[in-house]
Amino acid sequence: MASGPLICDTEPWKNLKAHVDDVKKTHLRELLADEERCKSMIIDHDGIVLDFSRQQILKETIEGLFKLAEAARLKEKIDKMFSGEKINQTENRSVLHAALRAARDAVIYSDGCNVVPDVWSVLDKIKSFSESVRNGSWVGATGKALTDVVSVGIGGSFLGPLFVHTALQTDGEASHSAKGRELRFLANVDPVDVARSIAGLNPETTLVVVVSKTFTTAETMLNARTLREWISSALGAQAVAKHMVAVSTNIELVEKFGIDPNNAFAFWDWVGGRYSVCSAVGVLPLSLQYGFSIVEKFLSGARSIDNHFHSTPFEKNIPVLLGLLSVWNVTFLGYPARAILPYCQALEKFAPHIQQVSMESNGKGVSIDGIPLPYETGEIDFGEPGTNGQHSFYQLIHQGRVIPCDFIGIVMSQQPVFLKGEPVNNHDELMSNFFAQPDALAFGKTPEQLVSENVPNHLIPHKTFSGNRPSLSILLPHLTAYNIGQLLAMYEHRVAVEGFVWGINSFDQWGVELGKSLATQVRKQLHSSRTAEEPIKGFNYSTSTLLSKYLEAETGIASSTSTVLPRV
Amino acid sequence: MASGPLICDTEPWKNLKAHVDDVKKTHLRELLADEERCKSMIIDHDGIVLDFSRQQILKETIEGLFKLAEAARLKEKIDKMFSGEKINQTENRSVLHAALRAARDAVIYSDGCNVVPDVWSVLDKIKSFSESVRNGSWVGATGKALTDVVSVGIGGSFLGPLFVHTALQTDGEASHSAKGRELRFLANVDPVDVARSIAGLNPETTLVVVVSKTFTTAETMLNARTLREWISSALGAQAVAKHMVAVSTNIELVEKFGIDPNNAFAFWDWVGGRYSVCSAVGVLPLSLQYGFSIVEKFLSGARSIDNHFHSTPFEKNIPVLLGLLSVWNVTFLGYPARAILPYCQALEKFAPHIQQVSMESNGKGVSIDGIPLPYETGEIDFGEPGTNGQHSFYQLIHQGRVIPCDFIGIVMSQQPVFLKGEPVNNHDELMSNFFAQPDALAFGKTPEQLVSENVPNHLIPHKTFSGNRPSLSILLPHLTAYNIGQLLAMYEHRVAVEGFVWGINSFDQWGVELGKSLATQVRKQLHSSRTAEEPIKGFNYSTSTLLSKYLEAETGIASSTSTVLPRV
Repeated sequence: MASGPLICDTEPWKNLKAHVDDVKKTHLRELLADEERCKSMIIDHDGIVLDFSRQQILKETIEGLFKLAEAARLKEKIDKMFSGEKINQTENRSVLHAALRAARDAVIYSDGCNVVPDVWSVLDKIKSFSESVRNGSWVGATGKALTDVVSVGIGGSFLGPLFVHTALQTDGEASHSAKGRELRFLANVDPVDVARSIAGLNPETTLVVVVSKTFTTAETMLNARTLREWISSALGAQAVAKHMVAVSTNIELVEKFGIDPNNAFAFWDWVGGRYSVCSAVGVLPLSLQYGFSIVEKFLSGARSIDNHFHSTPFEKNIPVLLGLLSVWNVTFLGYPARAILPYCQALEKFAPHIQQVSMESNGKGVSIDGIPLPYETGEIDFGEPGTNGQHSFYQLIHQGRVIPCDFIGIVMSQQPVFLKGEPVNNHDELMSNFFAQPDALAFGKTPEQLVSENVPNHLIPHKTFSGNRPSLSILLPHLTAYNIGQLLAMYEHRVAVEGFVWGINSFDQWGVELGKSLATQVRKQLHSSRTAEEPIKGFNYSTSTLLSKYLEAETGIASSTSTVLPRV
Repeated sequence: MASGPLICDTEPWKNLKAHVDDVKKTHLRELLADEERCKSMIIDHDGIVLDFSRQQILKETIEGLFKLAEAARLKEKIDKMFSGEKINQTENRSVLHAALRAARDAVIYSDGCNVVPDVWSVLDKIKSFSESVRNGSWVGATGKALTDVVSVGIGGSFLGPLFVHTALQTDGEASHSAKGRELRFLANVDPVDVARSIAGLNPETTLVVVVSKTFTTAETMLNARTLREWISSALGAQAVAKHMVAVSTNIELVEKFGIDPNNAFAFWDWVGGRYSVCSAVGVLPLSLQYGFSIVEKFLSGARSIDNHFHSTPFEKNIPVLLGLLSVWNVTFLGYPARAILPYCQALEKFAPHIQQVSMESNGKGVSIDGIPLPYETGEIDFGEPGTNGQHSFYQLIHQGRVIPCDFIGIVMSQQPVFLKGEPVNNHDELMSNFFAQPDALAFGKTPEQLVSENVPNHLIPHKTFSGNRPSLSILLPHLTAYNIGQLLAMYEHRVAVEGFVWGINSFDQWGVELGKSLATQVRKQLHSSRTAEEPIKGFNYSTSTLLSKYLEAETGIASSTSTVLPRV
């Protein structure tokens, strides 16, 4: 364990700390009046525009952040990531989600092997399998085409694919390709989620994709066994091989489960769950729904950002700038949260996905070398699409706590709508808000302005907006599969940049282990109490009390010896 | 403007401030070993169990909080709310959402009038209208029964009804009543949301409910006009009266829109949008989907908590305790956020609804008398259902920032599932996590424990959990309409308690106004630039730059003189 110095012990860190006071003396009202400053804070790449002029920064702040990046050896760490070094030290793994969307002729090594041919061999297999399902040459046990897919997975095997699916389903080209097909996800081990996921589906026309790297994830495997029962009780046990496939690396368990190992789609140790949407985890269900060619565009959008991130000088590097600005907001200005606000209903599931990517990656308390950190790392990410959020939590953002906001807008709508006689088309109406909110946050409204509008005295404090609330704006030209890939990669790399600067390991997740092991203990207790009336033992007073209240009620399951499936 | 002293100037506040150090010397490991303490922190009411023993509090903390409540005149404020006093001072309104679920023979005054008969006259009207639609005596323009409902509304006219709908749809009784029917919501002014909301629906069998108190909400009215066009272009203009109804108080605008004023369902000034789910806003669409008798149970669950909140001594008063503990966490311990974690997929939309109720109510920077506050108020609320969240942001909750968590569990599942041969049924598997996570957060795991498990040295810092992270657990016996009503009212009142103690107005929302007025300016610019090629004028450099990039692209609308509807 090489325990290098912490980043907070470096000069650039201390200089930035000292610089905070300079910034606090300013107001975004003044900063936004400086055109030169603003000009230098609007950049673009491959159709994406990033405007970070409404961050609480001076030009010197950016320079200071670049020095901090240098002290953190950011460039070196990015290079190591792309070259397959085992930067996930605690798990001794490479971090190569970028290889999942590399060009077919790219060369990326992990453990001395070029991984790109493996990636493409799985992609080719997905292409051919998904085409055979989509064109009806692969059929179910009763000879019917499989038009519906339930993808069973949790966390990284769920949120990323769900985000992309939600974004694609109103895209013209994608929705055309998906005609007559349905894709659903089953994540929660709650049987209510099982009921919801199969409501109205016919097992005869349904394909279940089980997504679990190890094929041991507790929730996913119980859900997979539940859907296996749903299929086999309707169509017989032999139907499972036709109606269930797997995304996993554990071929032995896949086969033991009853899935034909030829129908297992691999991924690799160097893909973290929350970074796996570009592996078979996302590519298989999405290709089944939309066809491989659409998904290929998604991959190429992500690749475009990978290349940009890897090769562009920091001054024009979108993920680097996004990451450094987040470090500034979180650690130097002390803002604990970030709101992700896409002005686009198709991006409804983007914030929940990034919430996972960011908070699981950077919610750490020790450095990569195991040193407890004297500064805060990962922020709380949350968000809803605009304009919905405006009628929900924006009150707090405008007049309560300061929460740096990401505004994401789309130039051309997936679904243009215009009503004759309206002043603007519906998308313009939406985008009026996208343009207005960042200025409302930055400028605010002074008591003097309210006086000049004849607002009654007693209301002035209530209608005053302090302003000086930071945000950034991202404008995408469209929301096609390609742009969705860009957006994903931009945020994935931003999170990595933050972690690289903080000096943490953004690619492990030891913090999820303890709850799992305690759940095992509870499960054993519930089993022994239900089956053998064993008393509750080994828990503290509070847990014992709640457990006994729980156990004393009916379960709704008449006899624990026969199978019960959902009734919706 | 009566500018009373701020609560932070009182003795109880100062005493609690001083008490923080006593608490910080403790660890939840010790606190949970004190059975007497824990016993005093588990209470129940009407089937609900609240366990707050895992809050970072001593018995004296609770006593101190009760003194704070006294200093804040909490009891008096609660009484004023229930008795219809105009406690929403800045808008000069009563706050009577509790009246929406009062018993038919209750008497509650606002402005000298008993409002209960008005409430019940609307409920009776909803009952009769929804029955006529459900039984096919009210039909569409082509004589077909209206089986599908699109409810158009935003913010409070959307999130509450969506939460209740999502919670009911897998309940056995409710789903049985909803057979053959579909309920959707359209909130976002994004035309993508319009496309999504009508995809696959036939105007002939669709009823549109337009929900807007003033009938002027920009998003809702444009969406309503868009759906009016969708209906009238398919069925003729005269079909609108048969296919559209309104929840509004502005009868004039309702009629002008083309809706029969007899089909307008009223609500009142004393109902805030975010507290309106028990008015026609929620009751009408939910009754259309599930039948009035189910919705009546929902109202009676809320009423049960109203009575409990109004009449129970604070020691056993669930909303009061929840509210005071939140004040403790936010203001005294300095935790800026709260995670709402229902171990129940049916409660998927509970956190987004409470995010609105809480953040819009308490995201304020001045006291009710207009004095700028020297302490933080409303917290950031976010959450996802467990176990999904465990595979997403729980890493941060366990090893990053401290975020007080609400764990919500259900004793008996809406959809019991058991597979022969499994150690536990699926709901027990889910609930194993509900019981395990609070203890994982509270107890953590020490380096010593890891050493005894032979964890390699270099991993010990990464696998250590500091513990001492507060949470509370709420256990509901079932998730029926009744319990959903209980849960809603519990959280509504908790938010009010917080606001009453902080001395703010939890019932206004001036912070949403500025963005609206700036959006108007952008809309005008987009109109004049699109129709008359007017140059961009009156915006700062950054906004002008982005606006010009936006305007220079195609809109996807060939000519701005003819109507374009979504194509999905």
